[in-house]
Amino acid sequence: MNDTLVDPAILEKVRGWRPYVEAKLGFRNHWYPILQSTNLAEGGTATATLCGEPLIFTRLDGVVYCLRDRCLHRGVRFSKKPECHAKGSLTCWYHGYTYRWRDGRLTDVIAAPNTKIVDGRRGVRTFPVQEAKGLVFVFMGDAAQALPALATDVPPKFLDEDLHVMSKLRIVRSNWRHGVENGFDTTHIYIHRESRLIQENNLVLPLGFAPSAAKSWHIEESPAGPVGVVEDYGPNVVPAFEGRIEGRTVLKVPSDIEGKNLVPHTISMWLPCALAVDPWPDPATIQMEWYVPVDATTHLYVQTLGKRVADDAGRREFQREYHNRWEHYAFDEFNGPDIWAREAAEEGYASDHHWVDEALFEADENIIAFRRLVSERNRGVQRLSDLRE
Amino acid sequence: MNDTLVDPAILEKVRGWRPYVEAKLGFRNHWYPILQSTNLAEGGTATATLCGEPLIFTRLDGVVYCLRDRCLHRGVRFSKKPECHAKGSLTCWYHGYTYRWRDGRLTDVIAAPNTKIVDGRRGVRTFPVQEAKGLVFVFMGDAAQALPALATDVPPKFLDEDLHVMSKLRIVRSNWRHGVENGFDTTHIYIHRESRLIQENNLVLPLGFAPSAAKSWHIEESPAGPVGVVEDYGPNVVPAFEGRIEGRTVLKVPSDIEGKNLVPHTISMWLPCALAVDPWPDPATIQMEWYVPVDATTHLYVQTLGKRVADDAGRREFQREYHNRWEHYAFDEFNGPDIWAREAAEEGYASDHHWVDEALFEADENIIAFRRLVSERNRGVQRLSDLRE
Amino acid sequence: MNDTLVDPAILEKVRGWRPYVEAKLGFRNHWYPILQSTNLAEGGTATATLCGEPLIFTRLDGVVYCLRDRCLHRGVRFSKKPECHAKGSLTCWYHGYTYRWRDGRLTDVIAAPNTKIVDGRRGVRTFPVQEAKGLVFVFMGDAAQALPALATDVPPKFLDEDLHVMSKLRIVRSNWRHGVENGFDTTHIYIHRESRLIQENNLVLPLGFAPSAAKSWHIEESPAGPVGVVEDYGPNVVPAFEGRIEGRTVLKVPSDIEGKNLVPHTISMWLPCALAVDPWPDPATIQMEWYVPVDATTHLYVQTLGKRVADDAGRREFQREYHNRWEHYAFDEFNGPDIWAREAAEEGYASDHHWVDEALFEADENIIAFRRLVSERNRGVQRLSDLRE
Repeated sequence: MNDTLVDPAILEKVRGWRPYVEAKLGFRNHWYPILQSTNLAEGGTATATLCGEPLIFTRLDGVVYCLRDRCLHRGVRFSKKPECHAKGSLTCWYHGYTYRWRDGRLTDVIAAPNTKIVDGRRGVRTFPVQEAKGLVFVFMGDAAQALPALATDVPPKFLDEDLHVMSKLRIVRSNWRHGVENGFDTTHIYIHRESRLIQENNLVLPLGFAPSAAKSWHIEESPAGPVGVVEDYGPNVVPAFEGRIEGRTVLKVPSDIEGKNLVPHTISMWLPCALAVDPWPDPATIQMEWYVPVDATTHLYVQTLGKRVADDAGRREFQREYHNRWEHYAFDEFNGPDIWAREAAEEGYASDHHWVDEALFEADENIIAFRRLVSERNRGVQRLSDLRE
Repeated sequence: MNDTLVDPAILEKVRGWRPYVEAKLGFRNHWYPILQSTNLAEGGTATATLCGEPLIFTRLDGVVYCLRDRCLHRGVRFSKKPECHAKGSLTCWYHGYTYRWRDGRLTDVIAAPNTKIVDGRRGVRTFPVQEAKGLVFVFMGDAAQALPALATDVPPKFLDEDLHVMSKLRIVRSNWRHGVENGFDTTHIYIHRESRLIQENNLVLPLGFAPSAAKSWHIEESPAGPVGVVEDYGPNVVPAFEGRIEGRTVLKVPSDIEGKNLVPHTISMWLPCALAVDPWPDPATIQMEWYVPVDATTHLYVQTLGKRVADDAGRREFQREYHNRWEHYAFDEFNGPDIWAREAAEEGYASDHHWVDEALFEADENIIAFRRLVSERNRGVQRLSDLRE
Repeated sequence: MNDTLVDPAILEKVRGWRPYVEAKLGFRNHWYPILQSTNLAEGGTATATLCGEPLIFTRLDGVVYCLRDRCLHRGVRFSKKPECHAKGSLTCWYHGYTYRWRDGRLTDVIAAPNTKIVDGRRGVRTFPVQEAKGLVFVFMGDAAQALPALATDVPPKFLDEDLHVMSKLRIVRSNWRHGVENGFDTTHIYIHRESRLIQENNLVLPLGFAPSAAKSWHIEESPAGPVGVVEDYGPNVVPAFEGRIEGRTVLKVPSDIEGKNLVPHTISMWLPCALAVDPWPDPATIQMEWYVPVDATTHLYVQTLGKRVADDAGRREFQREYHNRWEHYAFDEFNGPDIWAREAAEEGYASDHHWVDEALFEADENIIAFRRLVSERNRGVQRLSDLRE
């Protein structure tokens, strides 16, 4: 088995974005959202898998810690039966190997006092954690030196003080890249043409877009922020409201924009795997979402909806609005077919040959731009060997 | 993974019928029955897998068309949500890539009018289709030039004008070759010795056959017809009605032929994978059946029963006879243990080593003759790479 | 696929016990318990898999016979529908290939009297069988010459005349070695600290053991007996009743030995895979158990409990005692977490990398001693090719 799970013969044939095709387990040394803050109580534990790596979390004095969920001794997962006998430490259920949450250091083996295996050097890997907007972010990489700022791995605006963010997480049975390519895909709106959200929120949704001579995307970055590809719904994007087959019109969707909510203005894709649809589904809200690598065939779909609020009352009102309206119409009903499409694409790319055979077209240029960008600017391809070091 | 899914080290050890052992996915450039005509209505769609190839079918003005069930763009299956917005075309549910059923040509992308991806050259693979005797046959091969006549890939008599054919299709969990070798196997009747069909239709069924000095099979072919091996239940076949173990008789089945239906006269196996038992189970009926390759571990078992009829009344009477009698006693009850035996053989040959280790005996000579014949006369081994071109 | 299912690159990195790491399918040419005698009635059949080898058993005039459960002809398993038409023979359900239980010789093919395939030489492999203490033992190896005595592959005392043995068998979803290493592991008692057996039988169970300067195990063997590693609960073993984390006591279990049953005195591990805990769980009983290789990821957990009895009345009393008390408290409740731990270790060692990465400590020295011993003294590593010869 190749160290990236991709047949080298296929990688040889990929032009321009080989690291992306290699990154079946995602990119390393980036921040990823992995849990909702509310799902990890003080003193409790939670478990998750990120880029193939099993993780266990706790919260101590409000601060979240993360260790590799695998005892040095017998390789068993702590999370099978998490034991925390002293604040600040995690004990393996099998022989009592005990580690410090803070630095992963092996401090004791309960079943063997004074064992020499506790030498002050051994420990399990720790992963830096940061909370923001109700989500727990993990840095999948080496704890060592220069930790990049969380702001470099989330879409612009996401961390804005006045943006209140609601979120929903679920596991999807496709590789993370089919999430990225479905989300940033401008013409996949074809599958949303009958969505109830359109009428419900007074939207105008074309069937797709006619190719335009001028490029509609650009690369954006700022010194302290993320790098991404921004697709601009400006004059270079020509909406198509009629579907034609061999010259005959076969489908039509309403194109009248009078009194309609004209959203979004931009769709953008940010390293490592976050999409921003701004604004959406309402002129006052932004949908940002992540397609977080879990393992080769699974990703965590992290949907967030943000709205600027002035105070607690505004926060509470948006929470109600989210639960009464957007969670159902946007996250479930509108994005449901996206989940289904990613699972279908997983089947299409199952043998990896389709990375070579795929027949992309003009509308996929922003996706290609992102493939190139992430291939160049990622901080490392996650490899099977990373899971063992 | 080898291109034929068979370990080359095993192929090296096979003498005389290597292409047959290689053909785990079946043989290419042959006609195969795949659907019942009644299961594909005008304007509807159906899906199936043949020799590893996903297929989608429709019927337009009565004519059946078949495309590879896989969009050029993202590799998704059309059949996940078939869309036909204009007569004669199939549209992918994801971005509206639209293909002509007739020639597979990509004619439009609904979500992107005027895209250059529609260049008049791109298309999905089409497969020739022909209907006969209530079955839809597909030619698993290249649409190109010289299409062989259907008559070269079905048993003789099958297409005879006055033969009315009833059929039943089901999926069996074994490679197609275990169907072939079970069906053409003269001594496997041992497993049928307690079948209720014997008494029900007044048959005489020995436990097996004693080896005879003279060969009982011959190869048959005609210019316009198929090529096959015919086993002749003539003087060279010595029925055994008593089973002996170390000299003692341990089993006996009735051998009295007085007033009994003495069937069949011949059993024959035709390229690519069709058996004819003639006559059977009645002196007035012929059972022909196919073991159609689906994928490496699955075949489609196509059972047919034919009877010569003079007119519509005869046809209706045979239909009643089939449903009241033969479907249950012959197709289900008698052939049930065959399905079970093929699944057991699938396990026996699972590692492919048994193709080298098997201890065949005299009664398997007709099977060996077929292995040699099909190895020589097939029109191509189906390979994994064929599924991608 | 490597012939032992283990990546050679991993084997290269193993020091001192490479054959043990190679023996994913167990060791060959040893005796293994596989069935309870009561589960094989006169004239009946039973089936099991041992070291990857499918087996079928019968009992004739009280004697148990064992054949490879795979017909020479089509590779199907006899046990799918065992047929015994004559005492002393097993007939394949497919074509009537008939074998002698005694020597595996092919004597007849019922469906083909006088076939030349019956040449007096062909046969299926037989495996020597011996019954002892209510268990059927099979010798997984070549029937040929020098069969080692059963006594060389069971713990000392097991065959003692006056020892009455009760047993329980079940399938566990881990490789057999995780059974061995869990059973012989002195500090895994940490997982048993809350077992109800402790109070129920008035035991003293420490949390583990502090490392001691002196070695507490030795290798034992006798000319006619087995070879094994014996861990002696003498002065070199220092029990730990308090668990500490970074200097603070976090766990305490009762250490008062007044009036308690102080068991066991020794724990020992014998080739090929049998543990003896003596005495346990009662001063008057010995628990011996086997972790029998089934396939790469499964073992048969054979638990036995022995007690010395003087007569039939003593035997009956112990049977009642076992069913009323030990079966539940010892085999099910106490050993339950062991089964669970082996399954967790199976996950930890799934990729085989953990054989290289594992962080063993002082308390694992007896396990390492056994790894070395069995690597040196085993009678052969079971290989995939052994399953085909």
